[in-house]
Amino acid sequence: MNFNEEQVISEISSIFSPLNQKNPRVIVGIGDDAAVVATDKHSVITTDMAIEDVHFNREWSTAYEIGSKITVANLADVYAMGADPQYLVVALTLTGNEEMQWIKDMARGIADTASASDSAVVGGDISRGEKIMISMTAVGSSRLNITRSGARVGDSIYLSALPGWSRAGYEILSKKIPQSSVHTRALAQFKSPELNPTLMRSFKSAHAMCDVSDSLLVQANQMSKASAVALRIDSRKIERAEGFADLAAVAHSLDVDVWDLIAGGGEDHVLLATGINLPGIHIGDVCEGSGVEFLDMKKAPESWRHFN
Amino acid sequence: MNFNEEQVISEISSIFSPLNQKNPRVIVGIGDDAAVVATDKHSVITTDMAIEDVHFNREWSTAYEIGSKITVANLADVYAMGADPQYLVVALTLTGNEEMQWIKDMARGIADTASASDSAVVGGDISRGEKIMISMTAVGSSRLNITRSGARVGDSIYLSALPGWSRAGYEILSKKIPQSSVHTRALAQFKSPELNPTLMRSFKSAHAMCDVSDSLLVQANQMSKASAVALRIDSRKIERAEGFADLAAVAHSLDVDVWDLIAGGGEDHVLLATGINLPGIHIGDVCEGSGVEFLDMKKAPESWRHFN
Repeated sequence: MNFNEEQVISEISSIFSPLNQKNPRVIVGIGDDAAVVATDKHSVITTDMAIEDVHFNREWSTAYEIGSKITVANLADVYAMGADPQYLVVALTLTGNEEMQWIKDMARGIADTASASDSAVVGGDISRGEKIMISMTAVGSSRLNITRSGARVGDSIYLSALPGWSRAGYEILSKKIPQSSVHTRALAQFKSPELNPTLMRSFKSAHAMCDVSDSLLVQANQMSKASAVALRIDSRKIERAEGFADLAAVAHSLDVDVWDLIAGGGEDHVLLATGINLPGIHIGDVCEGSGVEFLDMKKAPESWRHFN
Repeated sequence: MNFNEEQVISEISSIFSPLNQKNPRVIVGIGDDAAVVATDKHSVITTDMAIEDVHFNREWSTAYEIGSKITVANLADVYAMGADPQYLVVALTLTGNEEMQWIKDMARGIADTASASDSAVVGGDISRGEKIMISMTAVGSSRLNITRSGARVGDSIYLSALPGWSRAGYEILSKKIPQSSVHTRALAQFKSPELNPTLMRSFKSAHAMCDVSDSLLVQANQMSKASAVALRIDSRKIERAEGFADLAAVAHSLDVDVWDLIAGGGEDHVLLATGINLPGIHIGDVCEGSGVEFLDMKKAPESWRHFN
């Protein structure tokens, strides 16, 4: 063991606490039985965890990337409700074989990503385990409650960005594909998915919204069912999206169908929304009926979603 | 594998969701990107996890007890701030070898314990891992913010109950002591520590408070330091507490000093509080100075606290 619990808590606290001290809404920060924070009338709460060798791998990703990625997953779920993230707590399992610098880098990845979304880590728990595990809970301020059930006939359907990059990055790494410049964006999105707070907040007039972390196909079906409408997605509109040609080139290098990446991949933390005149990529329309229809697609995309 | 992720989520949701549906403050419950709940001006947030073979053991405890115990740990941290628990989220790692009945029993242990404190599980995450892990976050309504730093010279010091039982239970199980009726209470408190919401809420006029889950000795020292006062604890007062003679008999059967259990044990989720005319056991007084003094104790108690 390179450290004891008190040292780890002290090092991590010194990374998270400055964000609390600058934040007048954090009344009691790290170090007591619980944090005390100012909350609004309605709050959102969500939790998402990342486990070594299931969701991440220390050979593939840096500590900073691992910390950032799980933070993005939690923040995206808050934005997907039309809410604004405010507070995070982190339960962390360490094996005892990590270097202190690795732990500090991971905490820095969490802190920087939280800070970019005006959020602060206000508490945590630390334990020993056989694998590294980061379990995070995000609390945010909600005024809107944009659920999956608000899609209306006549709405347009939007994505905040083209999905598929994260799955492509996973394929490159897991199949040990020789890496070239065509793979850069996919690898970056897998290791540390981008989260643009300004873009995420620009969807607050959506009627229905969710993130597509479980794949576009799975989550469009969930939205269709929850809203009792049909979602008609036009593949040609997606083909015109920024990055499509590049993603198609990556898919070609991997010998997979680009639509399997776009519709069947996951972990992109892209928003799927319906409404009128939303930003992002207009990909189709909400119609009467049920289910999800992909127009002009040669074969049905597969979903890779499984128990992880 | 005995089940898939969807089945587990469906079974667990059917245990947690009725508590949400009865609760008008849960606006969006389990099943969307995040829960939406009504919050007050100030909220407390705390997180605490339990890992198989570190914090619990499937041979020693039932699934119901394991679920209940981690819930008690989280709720106690909320009560220790003078706050009222309201909402829980649960991140759960399963190995895939569990029987569905085991998982349902664990969820029932969580749900029943939450319900007894007027709290509801509003969301979660589920993943596969090599060990069972339950990471929980509790959110509660705070009007008081009773921290560790409010102890004043002249305050009396109180415990909500006699601590040491949980550690005694752990010793019985880990040392494979032949069990007799003298061990019943210790085993019960280790497997599923008691939480009396009415008692926990009766400490709201405390000046300083924390729970003693890291041991009385460790947490009294933290309170002394945070409040810049001395805590003078009278061993004779503790000897008059309900259960002391029984705990001393357990200690004798284990060949350990009863004060090592009381002052050095942990995981009891008993409140340590200072103030005037509080309920519970009056164990001493707050004085000028620093540190924790145990009056009339033959040897200094040891703390078992380590990295878990």
